[in-house]
Amino acid sequence: MTTVKDMLRTYPGDKGALDGDLLARCIEECDRCARTCTACADACLAEDRVEELAACIRLDLDCADVCDITGRLVARYTPDGADLTRAQVEACALACAACAAECERHAAEHEHCRLCAEACRACEQACNDLLAAGL
Amino acid sequence: MTTVKDMLRTYPGDKGALDGDLLARCIEECDRCARTCTACADACLAEDRVEELAACIRLDLDCADVCDITGRLVARYTPDGADLTRAQVEACALACAACAAECERHAAEHEHCRLCAEACRACEQACNDLLAAGL
Amino acid sequence: MTTVKDMLRTYPGDKGALDGDLLARCIEECDRCARTCTACADACLAEDRVEELAACIRLDLDCADVCDITGRLVARYTPDGADLTRAQVEACALACAACAAECERHAAEHEHCRLCAEACRACEQACNDLLAAGL
Amino acid sequence: MTTVKDMLRTYPGDKGALDGDLLARCIEECDRCARTCTACADACLAEDRVEELAACIRLDLDCADVCDITGRLVARYTPDGADLTRAQVEACALACAACAAECERHAAEHEHCRLCAEACRACEQACNDLLAAGL
Repeated sequence: MTTVKDMLRTYPGDKGALDGDLLARCIEECDRCARTCTACADACLAEDRVEELAACIRLDLDCADVCDITGRLVARYTPDGADLTRAQVEACALACAACAAECERHAAEHEHCRLCAEACRACEQACNDLLAAGL
Repeated sequence: MTTVKDMLRTYPGDKGALDGDLLARCIEECDRCARTCTACADACLAEDRVEELAACIRLDLDCADVCDITGRLVARYTPDGADLTRAQVEACALACAACAAECERHAAEHEHCRLCAEACRACEQACNDLLAAGL
Repeated sequence: MTTVKDMLRTYPGDKGALDGDLLARCIEECDRCARTCTACADACLAEDRVEELAACIRLDLDCADVCDITGRLVARYTPDGADLTRAQVEACALACAACAAECERHAAEHEHCRLCAEACRACEQACNDLLAAGL
Repeated sequence: MTTVKDMLRTYPGDKGALDGDLLARCIEECDRCARTCTACADACLAEDRVEELAACIRLDLDCADVCDITGRLVARYTPDGADLTRAQVEACALACAACAAECERHAAEHEHCRLCAEACRACEQACNDLLAAGL
């Protein structure tokens, strides 16, 4: 089964000195987080007391959208466009942190929020690791 | 690590009689195919004879967009909205088949096209399996 | 201010015999509908009795996603890829019809639903006009 | 015809003290820029010497993706989530500036690049105006 890392290796141009494993992990965590947030928003909408989850749904939607697009930009990363990639990865780390914090408030009651908070924290970490590596 | 299947299991509402494993596999293959097509388009753009790959890039972009959104709709699937989900999954199977056919023409020369064709065929199959199961 | 039609006119390749005005209108209505559905979902989430609007929010999200991507595919339309474009435009007409029907149920009570139903019906019509023109 | 401003006015919650006209203009320019970039990338792919436009196509794709999602986040803006909205609008201004600069290099030769550069500059301005207004 093809992985993101396999695909990045086939790139014929120059991806610069950034660690390919960190790039691949950031893309993978963005994908996982986007899908988890989409599912969490939908599960929240099916809960009995959805009015208590309105903020959570809104953050899930923001985080899903931001992660989707951040994964695309990181997949197209080249050193030439590093400023934009960096700004987008920073926005993504913020989105993940905000969504995680809200989901953590509901984690004891809703398993989908607990799993979503975990995916958000993992993606936040992958974004921050890429930034720390000099993106 | 949280999987799509874990998330679908936490849904508090009614997903109907469709096999949850088929739903989860369709979402996962849509995600993988979307990311692979994005990376393939970008790798094609970095090839020396990009003019020979223009049709491939266009299909990669269409397929990435369609898979992204199909994954979202399948993640939000409920029996009430089955008509729309089915139409979107049918469009996705078409997108994957078209992109796979074009990538296969370049598979011997470009590894990214070979891997992308594989991901497209796997996603086409997952879509068709879901349709055959009565989506 | 540049319009979609201005952009389509600059395309150096062959868009085939389809009426450019119908293509442009479909893209514009997809854009308008996508944004209106996004705003309607968000307004629904801020209503007091959000639990009555859960189905509406879900359809808003589906419709926004489908319109976004349909606009992209129609913008990249060429006769070669007409099968996929057609399938996607058909799915879009379904998404718009479903979202409009649900929003119309809340139109008397919620102005955002009334406006959203209008945008969905206009986009449904633009999609159907394009299909009727032989897409 | 419903406008973004009409929709924002129907929001039942609190959008804070930010100028609604600036929010609406930012959303509208993001939508226009996203669609223009998608069409420009596609027109570039149909040009004879596409290899000279590879960087332009890549920036068009990044800019279309970033504008799409920024428009969504701004449409869902509330004061509570201002930090994330601000980071995303900053990334969007960067994406527009980078894409405009590249398109301007090809504006004399390609009308689609000239129109795209204009749309990018207008969106960059709308983003910066929103930031300057205290987003």
